[in-house]
Amino acid sequence: MLSISIRSNASRPFENLLCNRLLSSSTLSSSPLQTPPSNLIEVPLSHPIYTIWGSNTGVGKTLVSAGLAASILSPLSFSSLTAAKFIYIKPVQTGFPSDSDSSFVYRKISEIFLRRRLPATLFASNHAVKASTLASKEVLGVKIESESGGLRDCGWYEERRLEGEATSGAQVPRELICKTLCAWREAVSPHLAAEREHGAVEDAALLEMIQKCLWVEFNGGDDVDKKAETLSIIETAGGVASPGPSGTLQCNLYRPFRLPAILVGDGRLGGISGTVSAYESLKIRGYDVVAIVLEDHGLINEGSLLSYLRNSMPVLVLPSVPQNMSDNLMQWFDESHAIFTSLKDLMFSSFSERIRRLHDMPKKAVDIFWWPFTQHQLVPEDSVTVIDSRHGENFAVHKVQNHDLISQQFDGCASWWTQGPDCALQIELARDMGYAAARYGHVMFPENVYEPALECAELLLDGVGKGWASRTFFADNGSTAIEIALKMAFRKFSSDHGIIDDLLKNNKANTPPELMVLALRGSYHGDTLGAMEAQAPSCYTGFLQQPWYTGRGLFIDSPTVYMHEAKWNLFLPEGFYCKEYKQEDLTFRFRDELFYKSRDGSSISKSYLSYISKQLSPYSGVEGTGRIGALIIEPVIQGAGGMYMVDPLFQRMLVNECQSRKIPVIFDEVFTGFWRLGVESAAELLHCSPDIACFAKLMTGGIIPLAATLASEAVFNAFMGDSKLKALLHGHSYTAHAMGCTAARKAIRWFKDPMTNNNLTFEGKFLKELWDMELVHKISSHSAVKRLVVLGTIFSLELQAEGTNAGYASSYASSLIKLLREEDGIYLRPLGNVIYILCGPCTSPHVCSRLLAKLYQRVEEFHRKNLRSH
Amino acid sequence: MLSISIRSNASRPFENLLCNRLLSSSTLSSSPLQTPPSNLIEVPLSHPIYTIWGSNTGVGKTLVSAGLAASILSPLSFSSLTAAKFIYIKPVQTGFPSDSDSSFVYRKISEIFLRRRLPATLFASNHAVKASTLASKEVLGVKIESESGGLRDCGWYEERRLEGEATSGAQVPRELICKTLCAWREAVSPHLAAEREHGAVEDAALLEMIQKCLWVEFNGGDDVDKKAETLSIIETAGGVASPGPSGTLQCNLYRPFRLPAILVGDGRLGGISGTVSAYESLKIRGYDVVAIVLEDHGLINEGSLLSYLRNSMPVLVLPSVPQNMSDNLMQWFDESHAIFTSLKDLMFSSFSERIRRLHDMPKKAVDIFWWPFTQHQLVPEDSVTVIDSRHGENFAVHKVQNHDLISQQFDGCASWWTQGPDCALQIELARDMGYAAARYGHVMFPENVYEPALECAELLLDGVGKGWASRTFFADNGSTAIEIALKMAFRKFSSDHGIIDDLLKNNKANTPPELMVLALRGSYHGDTLGAMEAQAPSCYTGFLQQPWYTGRGLFIDSPTVYMHEAKWNLFLPEGFYCKEYKQEDLTFRFRDELFYKSRDGSSISKSYLSYISKQLSPYSGVEGTGRIGALIIEPVIQGAGGMYMVDPLFQRMLVNECQSRKIPVIFDEVFTGFWRLGVESAAELLHCSPDIACFAKLMTGGIIPLAATLASEAVFNAFMGDSKLKALLHGHSYTAHAMGCTAARKAIRWFKDPMTNNNLTFEGKFLKELWDMELVHKISSHSAVKRLVVLGTIFSLELQAEGTNAGYASSYASSLIKLLREEDGIYLRPLGNVIYILCGPCTSPHVCSRLLAKLYQRVEEFHRKNLRSH
Repeated sequence: MLSISIRSNASRPFENLLCNRLLSSSTLSSSPLQTPPSNLIEVPLSHPIYTIWGSNTGVGKTLVSAGLAASILSPLSFSSLTAAKFIYIKPVQTGFPSDSDSSFVYRKISEIFLRRRLPATLFASNHAVKASTLASKEVLGVKIESESGGLRDCGWYEERRLEGEATSGAQVPRELICKTLCAWREAVSPHLAAEREHGAVEDAALLEMIQKCLWVEFNGGDDVDKKAETLSIIETAGGVASPGPSGTLQCNLYRPFRLPAILVGDGRLGGISGTVSAYESLKIRGYDVVAIVLEDHGLINEGSLLSYLRNSMPVLVLPSVPQNMSDNLMQWFDESHAIFTSLKDLMFSSFSERIRRLHDMPKKAVDIFWWPFTQHQLVPEDSVTVIDSRHGENFAVHKVQNHDLISQQFDGCASWWTQGPDCALQIELARDMGYAAARYGHVMFPENVYEPALECAELLLDGVGKGWASRTFFADNGSTAIEIALKMAFRKFSSDHGIIDDLLKNNKANTPPELMVLALRGSYHGDTLGAMEAQAPSCYTGFLQQPWYTGRGLFIDSPTVYMHEAKWNLFLPEGFYCKEYKQEDLTFRFRDELFYKSRDGSSISKSYLSYISKQLSPYSGVEGTGRIGALIIEPVIQGAGGMYMVDPLFQRMLVNECQSRKIPVIFDEVFTGFWRLGVESAAELLHCSPDIACFAKLMTGGIIPLAATLASEAVFNAFMGDSKLKALLHGHSYTAHAMGCTAARKAIRWFKDPMTNNNLTFEGKFLKELWDMELVHKISSHSAVKRLVVLGTIFSLELQAEGTNAGYASSYASSLIKLLREEDGIYLRPLGNVIYILCGPCTSPHVCSRLLAKLYQRVEEFHRKNLRSH
Repeated sequence: MLSISIRSNASRPFENLLCNRLLSSSTLSSSPLQTPPSNLIEVPLSHPIYTIWGSNTGVGKTLVSAGLAASILSPLSFSSLTAAKFIYIKPVQTGFPSDSDSSFVYRKISEIFLRRRLPATLFASNHAVKASTLASKEVLGVKIESESGGLRDCGWYEERRLEGEATSGAQVPRELICKTLCAWREAVSPHLAAEREHGAVEDAALLEMIQKCLWVEFNGGDDVDKKAETLSIIETAGGVASPGPSGTLQCNLYRPFRLPAILVGDGRLGGISGTVSAYESLKIRGYDVVAIVLEDHGLINEGSLLSYLRNSMPVLVLPSVPQNMSDNLMQWFDESHAIFTSLKDLMFSSFSERIRRLHDMPKKAVDIFWWPFTQHQLVPEDSVTVIDSRHGENFAVHKVQNHDLISQQFDGCASWWTQGPDCALQIELARDMGYAAARYGHVMFPENVYEPALECAELLLDGVGKGWASRTFFADNGSTAIEIALKMAFRKFSSDHGIIDDLLKNNKANTPPELMVLALRGSYHGDTLGAMEAQAPSCYTGFLQQPWYTGRGLFIDSPTVYMHEAKWNLFLPEGFYCKEYKQEDLTFRFRDELFYKSRDGSSISKSYLSYISKQLSPYSGVEGTGRIGALIIEPVIQGAGGMYMVDPLFQRMLVNECQSRKIPVIFDEVFTGFWRLGVESAAELLHCSPDIACFAKLMTGGIIPLAATLASEAVFNAFMGDSKLKALLHGHSYTAHAMGCTAARKAIRWFKDPMTNNNLTFEGKFLKELWDMELVHKISSHSAVKRLVVLGTIFSLELQAEGTNAGYASSYASSLIKLLREEDGIYLRPLGNVIYILCGPCTSPHVCSRLLAKLYQRVEEFHRKNLRSH
């Protein structure tokens, strides 16, 4: 009835052992592993995979794992002939081998199986994959010479084949796979054991081991497997926030998988508190807890927990574990069987529900959403991306290929340029968001002060506004911040140029002049009417889009710079060109040269100035004409216009000239602010200051909308007076909302602190070069590439394209983008034929290089394909 | 050297016992208590008051309390002659009297004091205030007959006067006051003990007892006290989330005080996790944790905790508590003394830092903020409100009177009309915000789908959009939602009326007609230019504010209704008046009559229709004139315009007439939506549906900005086509951000669920009447009151005023508002001479009545004062 084989073989390769197949007898077959892309996590959705968390150590996580295994492998009676499989993974085990939860599950299930006498065959195995040298010695009972660090293959492997009662004809196959991935000798916290036993394992390595385990059961499964009721369990060590081997808290460590959770609560005195807190620690890391299960200690803790949860989730109560273990808990498992079966059913139904919803979402989305900037007719249901979560810079998206899975994609468009957080910042922001919501919710701003708003304003004025700004006006988004900036600028201009005095004196007899902005063609400042009026006519501004648009500006062309064939080139639009320019004025070997202040003395500079003066002269106050009341520019980079880099010299001349004419200068730093260009404020690159500047997007680290318009004291003073009617009568309900300000103060600090941002260099003033310059040069020389801009967190290239293939509405690059998304795990969103990658201020240069290499490869393929088709 | 008196006297009144004064010998003096306003919490800032929390039960909270007491009362050496006082409060004690933490502190300090032989006098007392009958029996050793529910005066009181070593001349006075507020016999969780011993105590009653204790040490303190180094401690029971006597989790129960926290962590195996989780539970309830202190168990848990905290907070480690207690822990206390002194110093310095910051904030605010809608010249530093936190509907503000304190104020302007959450919803939203930030941060919306956005859209379409809307377009705030709505409406109109076809056909030969909105005078739709253009000229729209404003609408007057002398009156502006009207058409006894559909057949209705037709006729498509391309109204109530209630009949006629002319109808429900008017959507009151509607403010429960523009499928279809250029090219970076959508889905559900909102009536369709109608009638008849509007969560009155006292810029009501804020704990913000109170959808009618009664009283005073001064 029972055949047992136990082997200890340190040389047995890990991968083979992972591939134990049901009914494969004791001969282990070897099947190739489908390894997911390195660094990007993929989780199969072929069957339910859960993590078991404990609200404390010693609350019975392993009993729950064993109980679940028993309910699926050894039901009390056979209601069906379904095959079943249970995979138990213990990533981290200390006190090994005397403590081994996977051994416990392995042994316990064997005992229960024998006791229950089922008409089935159970194949069970237990494998400890890696262990510290000290723990390995214990297992093998032999001397291991090497004492060098790291874990070694452990070699603990045992398996059993148990034949059940042959009452019916068929022997229903059952399989139990137990695995300990990393083990240490000492029964202390894993990070201590790893340190003391010189058995470190990095987070990434551990995650990769787990990922392999999750996938191995998926790949190469035969027909029997596909029909088998399968459940995988990852059992954590200690409590939810106990450190893993590297010291990373486990709730953070396992977050990339974001597996649904079962929380084993605490039924003892004080256990309500521990359970609630553990639950909250999981929630504020984005986990979905499906059920809480706890051992009864006669204190009815489940009552308080259900009340806390508002009955939104089941709390299951297990009978008390007997003090007397003489029957090896056999009776306890029998008594608990119904509970475990309920739990198991719940886990399966919750899983099915999730899969169903994931599949339904694209259709529902195309049915009821109205996406911005999207022609719905061009978005078929199957092109909708279902985003299950994000983790630092990566989306986790649902994919349906020949199977369902959750797959990571690098968010290369930084979700419309908002994103900055790495995983660590995201977790801290999440906790801070909870704090701010609980402490303040939202409280109204005018005439009030509260800590987050004050601190945020202080940080802004001491950072991006340093040296010129003294006032912070809060808004909700870039577009509203721009509207506010324009109102400020016009008032300041009207004040400085006597227009307001005229108005008041002449008692409305004189109509005030028409005020216009000076702006650059190709710039973009937002979608509300006021912001639109400040930009040149484009596809966004026609009657079809905004019948009220008139374009209240003088819109001028500007010289741009770009990289081509590893050199930076200056492109001069018509009106600028002059034969006198020397080659040294027109090409640059290093990007830094473009920003040199010494260019102020160049011949180009003179030509810029004369161009600017010529443009401005018709609006200098002649009766009956409009007046230029403000200059508005995106410093250095025009984002939405197509990632154009304007010659910084030209912008500096423009700013100086306007300020000398008392025309207030607005910097639209909504896109460029907060390290997007490698410096905290793009003004630093221009070597000049505005009078007003707008910030949004990255300001909160990209977690929540908030904007700020900073202004100099001179601008502010134009609104001072005796009457409320002279004040700036503009505001939004959530102005300076506490959560936004809290996020901003965290993100602003995080990005500029060398302790949290490894990319800082030169006394924290600049980001180091994030992009592999050798590769950048190579790409810039590729014949498919027209121009390239690389600066700070931005890499952008324009594909050579003609006709309808060029421009905003073009879908020229879509096949390339699709491959990057689906095959390379890089989520990009092009601007027509312009493709860009935005990373975060803290993104590792290694990640950037990986992205760039993939992009290069796809551009090359794209180019070859195009050549072939022509 | 030692005099001890212990008395058990059940009849001794509580208040007297609280007033034990140092050096008052054993004769207890009685001084009057300054009771803070009932229901509103006030916390003194005269000296540091901390809460001691435990990460679990049995981690040594009471040892920490005792150690702190020892460090302040019995230092190892006397460095100064400062008097000192320690107040220990144990609000909830089970296992009493054999377990009594206050007795432990009382006894232990006496022992330490005697051992340390200091040149000081210690007066120590220990008092158990209330106990269950069962516990009282135990204390008194007598039979108590009554077994009825509730707690009874316990009568446990003991005091000691210890004379120290008289080495120096002066005997430095020291005082220890220990109190147990509520005690139960059984050593189980308080909620179980309270239930089993029929000794319930309500949360409010417990909070009031604590508040008295906090204040008693403040009031009537003599000079010695003022110089004394004083520290108050509230020690919780069990873990941070252990239930209190009513079942409310203690971290929620004590939240109204939001006292700074000391967390006693767990040094045992698994203790890192428990400590981190407990810390997080405190943080996501808005507490500030100042330090973590834990007992050493040789596991270096502090290392992991410091790493988790990024060294932002100290973690103090106490020596292991000896197994052998033969010396009553005297040696342990000696060894721990330096740690406790560090902890105490930290608590004092953190307290001073907080006070300093609170005092600095107003000046910093007026120096660097630029508040919206605020004439800074009219806001002196001392009028700035420092908001320390909010709890449900209440602000907690810092006040400096003759002493510092934190005081609650009801947020009667709902922070610019955004607020809805009660305390319970706020806590849940906080946890949800943490979850959403951790799960998604922000992810981009177009062509994507994620759960919060989808669920939010589903809830909107199934709620406020039910029956007409099929598409959700997300925006950031009301103003941008309106700009989007206008773009939608104009496209629909242009499409329906052949304008787009003309444009395409005639190839730009024809200029399209000027499109205008039809809007009501006095309406307000936001501050961005597009939204402003849709409203009539006002103080917001002049050249001084927005030089680009032209007013692109037909702005018409509308009939309004208001209550006066307990009746609802219809006010008809010029152009409407007609002698034929019967009295029954012009006055109404009940507000509901105004909404009856049967009014459609009244003579008023005909007059409305003819007025509307007349207004519209010049814009019906005659060549060369503008066209009305959209109707935009705030349904029923015009908020910012002064809380005017437009006759619903008039609005219904307007909607019907426009829809019959194929003019798209926009409802601006930014203010009126989500129960503001007592129904989920104000459209329900009008009995008609728009084509487009905008929502914001209350949509997220008032925690975070998010807006939505809903549209019918017909509107959506006007944007369908082959080209992206035909799509709605408008969007904001954070469109449909996950946190906002998560908040919205929680709030939308919460408000309409009878399980969470007690105010729902009539199958969840309406809010019950929240305002005391008798009092409302009384106020409406007061001669200081011109008109009154009461509907749903709104109570509004216009004060009789003339000349500059009336209108938006008036500060007529400021003295009244000031008294309400400072004396009555009601934070209102008037619209000129219009005073309103907004409560939340879940606010208890009792609270509303209290507010109204206070307001009435102040209006009456205000009126009498005005009469006297004339």
